[in-house]
Amino acid sequence: MGKIKLSEISTKAPDGLDKKETKEKLEGILQELDELQNLLYAESKHSVLVVIQGMDASGKDGAVRNVFGKLNPQGVLVRSYKVPTAEEAAHDFLWRIHLHAPQKGYIQIFNRSHYEDILVTRVHKWIDNKTARKRMQAINDFEKLLQEHNDTHILKFYLHISPKEQRERLEERIHNPAKQWKYNENDFEEAKLWDDYMEMYEDCFENCNDVPWTIVPTDQNWYKEYVMATMLRDTLKGLNMQYPGLKKK
Amino acid sequence: MGKIKLSEISTKAPDGLDKKETKEKLEGILQELDELQNLLYAESKHSVLVVIQGMDASGKDGAVRNVFGKLNPQGVLVRSYKVPTAEEAAHDFLWRIHLHAPQKGYIQIFNRSHYEDILVTRVHKWIDNKTARKRMQAINDFEKLLQEHNDTHILKFYLHISPKEQRERLEERIHNPAKQWKYNENDFEEAKLWDDYMEMYEDCFENCNDVPWTIVPTDQNWYKEYVMATMLRDTLKGLNMQYPGLKKK
Repeated sequence: MGKIKLSEISTKAPDGLDKKETKEKLEGILQELDELQNLLYAESKHSVLVVIQGMDASGKDGAVRNVFGKLNPQGVLVRSYKVPTAEEAAHDFLWRIHLHAPQKGYIQIFNRSHYEDILVTRVHKWIDNKTARKRMQAINDFEKLLQEHNDTHILKFYLHISPKEQRERLEERIHNPAKQWKYNENDFEEAKLWDDYMEMYEDCFENCNDVPWTIVPTDQNWYKEYVMATMLRDTLKGLNMQYPGLKKK
Repeated sequence: MGKIKLSEISTKAPDGLDKKETKEKLEGILQELDELQNLLYAESKHSVLVVIQGMDASGKDGAVRNVFGKLNPQGVLVRSYKVPTAEEAAHDFLWRIHLHAPQKGYIQIFNRSHYEDILVTRVHKWIDNKTARKRMQAINDFEKLLQEHNDTHILKFYLHISPKEQRERLEERIHNPAKQWKYNENDFEEAKLWDDYMEMYEDCFENCNDVPWTIVPTDQNWYKEYVMATMLRDTLKGLNMQYPGLKKK
């Protein structure tokens, strides 16, 4: 695969795709997922890690609510990573990540993740390139550990939004009382660093691609949700899981 | 370094080393360590991980008590790894290890460790050689993560006891009321697998040597304690630590 150029990838649903029809399909997939997740839990041979990254207002929270929030919370855990606490910052950057790696039978969602440690940190030049390269290697080693030593299937989603759509969503946060709690004036400052973020994301996709990324066009939420649910469904189906039957002594 | 042959390394203190004098030296080193550990805690730039491995009755518990037990427990933590719990076993083998990796300013002692996952497991053929090789690679990657991304200084000690000394100590556990709680009839079964254990330890020293091992002659506890305390003292001294002075706003 050549280097990903985000500016060349559409942020919109494919032309001609019907919204109503796609939403109906999503309902069907969510029902399949409900059954597949139960099977994953019952069999307890595999685990699944879903990493969600994206710019502010790209719809990460919505994806968690509308796709993974429909599944049984007993077997689906969500962890949102924010600025590290003092205790987290006193450890290697993967410590707080590894702590929440999924155990067998579980689906773990990361809303933001270890990738922030090579994204926001680089855009603001809190770390140099040499440190970034070392972190990328450490991330690749870490993801291999989960894959090879705990049958963890990793899905990495980048929610791909256009700067225009982002601006509209950020502005809506000012005016919509139900969204004002999400408003952060700093988001507009961060948005000005758009090109730097894109460059760092592209570098990340190139160097941390042992587990491939899915670039999800996300200007329309219904399409984003459909893509993510489909990927998860296909991944779980591919595991050929079986109910284990009666336990033998 | 050539391949370590344990049978060619003495399990005893060097000839002519005076026991009383060495014990007096140890007292001095422990006092130095008390000050150095306080400095490590105050500066909070580095962290130290001490891994202790060895056959049954090789004196791991005694080392913890008589060397590290003399230091301030606020900054020195001990974790003993036993048979994995159900929750631990449902994760990759390094999950429970990473959880207790030291934060900056701390000394963490592992009484047994991730190395059991390539020792007891191989002797009993619970894992095949291919899995063992993958685990060794994962261990090397993991130790590099701690070194490069949290300034963790790792000391790995193998407590080297002779089969004869081991047998005497195991038998003492039958007769000494203060040691009977440590008696486990299975230990005698494990002792029969001596040669297999030595082979797996030697293979481990060869393949997980990015962070070098110290082979500690341990038939005499006073010498073992002296060697371990000296290594830790030298490591801490080498960090050239400074008290940070008054915090500036």
